[in-house]
Amino acid sequence: MSKDSVHVFPMRVYYEDTDAVGIVYYANYLRFAERARTELLRDLGIENAQLMEQQNLAFAVKRCSMDFVKPAKLDDILAVETRLIDIGGASLTADQRVRRDQTVLVNMELKLACMANDGRPAAARGLRHRQADPGMNKRWK
Amino acid sequence: MSKDSVHVFPMRVYYEDTDAVGIVYYANYLRFAERARTELLRDLGIENAQLMEQQNLAFAVKRCSMDFVKPAKLDDILAVETRLIDIGGASLTADQRVRRDQTVLVNMELKLACMANDGRPAAARGLRHRQADPGMNKRWK
Amino acid sequence: MSKDSVHVFPMRVYYEDTDAVGIVYYANYLRFAERARTELLRDLGIENAQLMEQQNLAFAVKRCSMDFVKPAKLDDILAVETRLIDIGGASLTADQRVRRDQTVLVNMELKLACMANDGRPAAARGLRHRQADPGMNKRWK
Amino acid sequence: MSKDSVHVFPMRVYYEDTDAVGIVYYANYLRFAERARTELLRDLGIENAQLMEQQNLAFAVKRCSMDFVKPAKLDDILAVETRLIDIGGASLTADQRVRRDQTVLVNMELKLACMANDGRPAAARGLRHRQADPGMNKRWK
Repeated sequence: MSKDSVHVFPMRVYYEDTDAVGIVYYANYLRFAERARTELLRDLGIENAQLMEQQNLAFAVKRCSMDFVKPAKLDDILAVETRLIDIGGASLTADQRVRRDQTVLVNMELKLACMANDGRPAAARGLRHRQADPGMNKRWK
Repeated sequence: MSKDSVHVFPMRVYYEDTDAVGIVYYANYLRFAERARTELLRDLGIENAQLMEQQNLAFAVKRCSMDFVKPAKLDDILAVETRLIDIGGASLTADQRVRRDQTVLVNMELKLACMANDGRPAAARGLRHRQADPGMNKRWK
Repeated sequence: MSKDSVHVFPMRVYYEDTDAVGIVYYANYLRFAERARTELLRDLGIENAQLMEQQNLAFAVKRCSMDFVKPAKLDDILAVETRLIDIGGASLTADQRVRRDQTVLVNMELKLACMANDGRPAAARGLRHRQADPGMNKRWK
Repeated sequence: MSKDSVHVFPMRVYYEDTDAVGIVYYANYLRFAERARTELLRDLGIENAQLMEQQNLAFAVKRCSMDFVKPAKLDDILAVETRLIDIGGASLTADQRVRRDQTVLVNMELKLACMANDGRPAAARGLRHRQADPGMNKRWK
């Protein structure tokens, strides 16, 4: 995480991400956002595969809203920025946005739950003590 | 379209749609929703490929919000229901939801724009005169 | 299965399947092929989800070769044809091809194994007695 | 390109790449392979978006064979290795393989054509003079 608590995930747009209009297919921004959140969690010491094997837990998106401002195109280098707005033991609220240089392409707000195999909410060990991060609660929008 | 102006698109969940948690990957509901909107538009006489070739137009999602209630699983038969809430010449507002039998799994609200090659809004021929459908404006939520 | 032992799976090409070249992205033919094999197996009484839950088994592709003859495009209606060439208790050999009307777009040959959780080959109940089907062993190519 | 003419593309496996069996879905190795080829071409001075805009050309896979040796899993770090076996003006033959550390997971052989808008073969400027690379023609298999 950078010092102002914004996690930055750089990535490239490939053919697989585009559609016949010549731009990134809208569902794929959710794939990009999930890659970024996965790397943010990894930076916090939480690995998805371990979480599943050792604690039988996984993060699931419960709610999300997306605002598509401008399209990304083939070969673009994008940055997916993630800011954790709120961290509970079994939940996360995140603001994410996709930028190409200084241009914001997509804004997202997501609410995630950490859930056990049976679908019930469960706390991921090591997540809650992150709660006091001073850079949080600064929304972009 | 059924008589109460709800378009129903039936579909099956395949391995490609699922992830290592054993459920449908969250981004894929947007793929399902787009299949359903495409078939609804086809029923209204608007084909995406023709729209692109003949009028240089394409529908783009501008805003969307998703509420993930319950997960879908491998081999599930789903129904994607679409209700057009508002139709302008160059825009559409749609409510969509994914059901398995009578259980609602995902709720979605989307705002779409019809755009020309250069990204400017443009009216799709034949869309606006659908506006007066009496079954519209009934939201699920 | 039709009378000459060719299973036919009809499908539509959506935006999600295409890329910026304006044609179906090459990897997606493997998604289409898997949908078709899944429906063929379902017709034979074998459901993937049940196979996993009740027998801890899944089919995995071990080898495949693909020949891309012509591209499919947005809104195309395709037929994925599947012919089982050889059925062992723990393996399958299939010829598949993707057609648009009478034009063959992609030819595929696949070798699949039925495997247990631990990656070892295992026989799926109910598969081997299909072996004597007289329509088999007729390759297209 | 490393000194022995093997291009190495490192990547991570995310949830989007996996399926309900808990491993990488077979079609996705073709996505990984295409990312690697794209970066190899970029290293050779050929960008897909430019190729399309300036020369109206795109590379299309004409033939491919895949050998699935072992599965990749969530969170794996993979290396996609690419070796150009043969370069013509309008065609490419490539060997690719996906490794996790020293373990080969998937072997691929691909034949690509460079094609104009109308589907006819066409030479990409700047490709043929790469032909004499001494490290070529060493197949892995």
